[in-house]
Amino acid sequence: MLVENKKYKTIWSDKSKKIKIIDQTRLPFEFIEVELKTLNCSIKAIFEMQVRGAPLIGVTAAFGIFLAVKESSLNKDIINAGKKLIATRPTAINLKWAVDKIIKKLLLVPDAKREELAFHLAHELAGEDENINEQIGNFGSKIIEKIFHKTKKPVNILTHCNAGWLATVDWGTATSPIYKARNNNIPLHVWVDETRPRNQGSFLTSWELKNENIDHTIIADNTGGHLMQNGLVDIVITGSDRTTYTGDVCNKIGTYLKAIAAKENKIPFYVALPSSTIDWKNPKGSKIAIEKRDQNEIHYIRGLSSNGSLENFRVTPNGTKAANFAFDVTPSKYITGLITEFGIFDSNENS
Amino acid sequence: MLVENKKYKTIWSDKSKKIKIIDQTRLPFEFIEVELKTLNCSIKAIFEMQVRGAPLIGVTAAFGIFLAVKESSLNKDIINAGKKLIATRPTAINLKWAVDKIIKKLLLVPDAKREELAFHLAHELAGEDENINEQIGNFGSKIIEKIFHKTKKPVNILTHCNAGWLATVDWGTATSPIYKARNNNIPLHVWVDETRPRNQGSFLTSWELKNENIDHTIIADNTGGHLMQNGLVDIVITGSDRTTYTGDVCNKIGTYLKAIAAKENKIPFYVALPSSTIDWKNPKGSKIAIEKRDQNEIHYIRGLSSNGSLENFRVTPNGTKAANFAFDVTPSKYITGLITEFGIFDSNENS
Repeated sequence: MLVENKKYKTIWSDKSKKIKIIDQTRLPFEFIEVELKTLNCSIKAIFEMQVRGAPLIGVTAAFGIFLAVKESSLNKDIINAGKKLIATRPTAINLKWAVDKIIKKLLLVPDAKREELAFHLAHELAGEDENINEQIGNFGSKIIEKIFHKTKKPVNILTHCNAGWLATVDWGTATSPIYKARNNNIPLHVWVDETRPRNQGSFLTSWELKNENIDHTIIADNTGGHLMQNGLVDIVITGSDRTTYTGDVCNKIGTYLKAIAAKENKIPFYVALPSSTIDWKNPKGSKIAIEKRDQNEIHYIRGLSSNGSLENFRVTPNGTKAANFAFDVTPSKYITGLITEFGIFDSNENS
Repeated sequence: MLVENKKYKTIWSDKSKKIKIIDQTRLPFEFIEVELKTLNCSIKAIFEMQVRGAPLIGVTAAFGIFLAVKESSLNKDIINAGKKLIATRPTAINLKWAVDKIIKKLLLVPDAKREELAFHLAHELAGEDENINEQIGNFGSKIIEKIFHKTKKPVNILTHCNAGWLATVDWGTATSPIYKARNNNIPLHVWVDETRPRNQGSFLTSWELKNENIDHTIIADNTGGHLMQNGLVDIVITGSDRTTYTGDVCNKIGTYLKAIAAKENKIPFYVALPSSTIDWKNPKGSKIAIEKRDQNEIHYIRGLSSNGSLENFRVTPNGTKAANFAFDVTPSKYITGLITEFGIFDSNENS
């Protein structure tokens, strides 16, 4: 998508096969392209969250394997590189899946062919992600268009966290229907939940939408209920980190509060997701273990000081404790539908 | 209540009749006592929110009249001082009520008696507020005690914003039942909503509870639903800025989301309020005009930088817009009961 009127993806290779990413830890304050020169650069990029979002992490790891093969195409070195990459984010299922798949194919060809194949496979994975998200957008935009044709007024969409193109290679999941609807000339406005404690809404989603010239407004996470009560939200679209086959959605903390408010106010609540994040083994969202992250993510916020420096500053009294639950589970009964690359499904295993 | 093991109220006079307050704009990072030397000091204190919370604003204005009388006890000067005080926070009903009441009484006595009377009346108002809040605590603590006697486990209370002693002269409203229950040896733990965008939960409520040695944990506003789903909240208690006689509660933005989550998870949701905040004219909360505050309260957060200076940091991309709704309305059907100085009432006009 656009960054200062120039087309970007979150990861790409230039003409001389240099692999580049956007350093997302500096957004929205600074826009910095970073070259991944070595395997270690790609490990660092994933570990330090210069890239984030399950799809993008998987693709970055795939390019990491390409960089590893450039350094050494020996079996043991490739296998070792895979282990190191997987260890960066142990809970990211996508990452392990991407790395294992690519290594398996590489080991079947002679050493001399591996560099070229690794480069090709990483690009293939990136392309697949892009296609999936574009399909999600094609299906999801129909819902937005339908609302517009009924109301004849700009469609107000509320979203939580960042399920945007920055979390994928391009298009995003929850944002893809928004970009597609806009491309189809549907007037719309997006309410962007700040999304405490890591502020992915105000840091990333609003930055994306601003660069794409999409009308939007940042709100405190506390605000969505009031907006829904007062007819200021037509539809909610969020992403999903994991979805049980019964339709329960595990997503960024706070998704559940918006879902019950939407149901209470009879507002459609959709979740956009690639089918690869569906958990076919687990029937109950309440069984998903919720990650508790470092409490310092609540005690400190990253921001720009008056002298222009980027800093983590303290926003709670010294000596207090905080609890940092990263996700919550929204039971399927609150969800109107799941938007996938194969179409829109009721969040109900029998449908 | 206690601040570093010393008893405090939010406003007081010392032996030599000096009027003092706590500068709440510096909390929780710095604890500074400020003397209100003149009428202008008290105007500044209210305007710049060194004192905040409807009850405390009213009492501060009353002491402001005392300071005005010290400067001049002429009718026209007293009336002028009242006008200036009322203009500091035009929507604060309490403030106008307190100022008008005191001036009316002052004008009935000879000039020479006015200073002493103004001092007495301001103290009387402060004492009334303290008594009301203590009564709210006496009634409300019974609910907490009942839960404890049933579960025999520490009672988990969730609160939103700061309806604490810092918003009143002492005890607070939503916090008063908590302090009273603790004084009655009921084991408890408080989940403190950060309360974006002004962070009154993490800045003020957690600071209060820490100083009173009450076990508590700061959480992002997004978290309450997840906690309720998982049996980690026994009761919610919030304050109220305005309550219709039909039981609808207008309170800090985000209260509504917690109330619907509580109902959905069958958790009691109580609102603590002095009866003076009941609106006897308005039957419908949805008719209350919701204040939209400066969007910079979302773009900037106050915090402590690594070099120890207190600063406003930018936390959104330049050029984006934000909407800052200060309150929302929780319809009475989501509220289990109203805790007042006269007892606990169903939030239902027929009961």
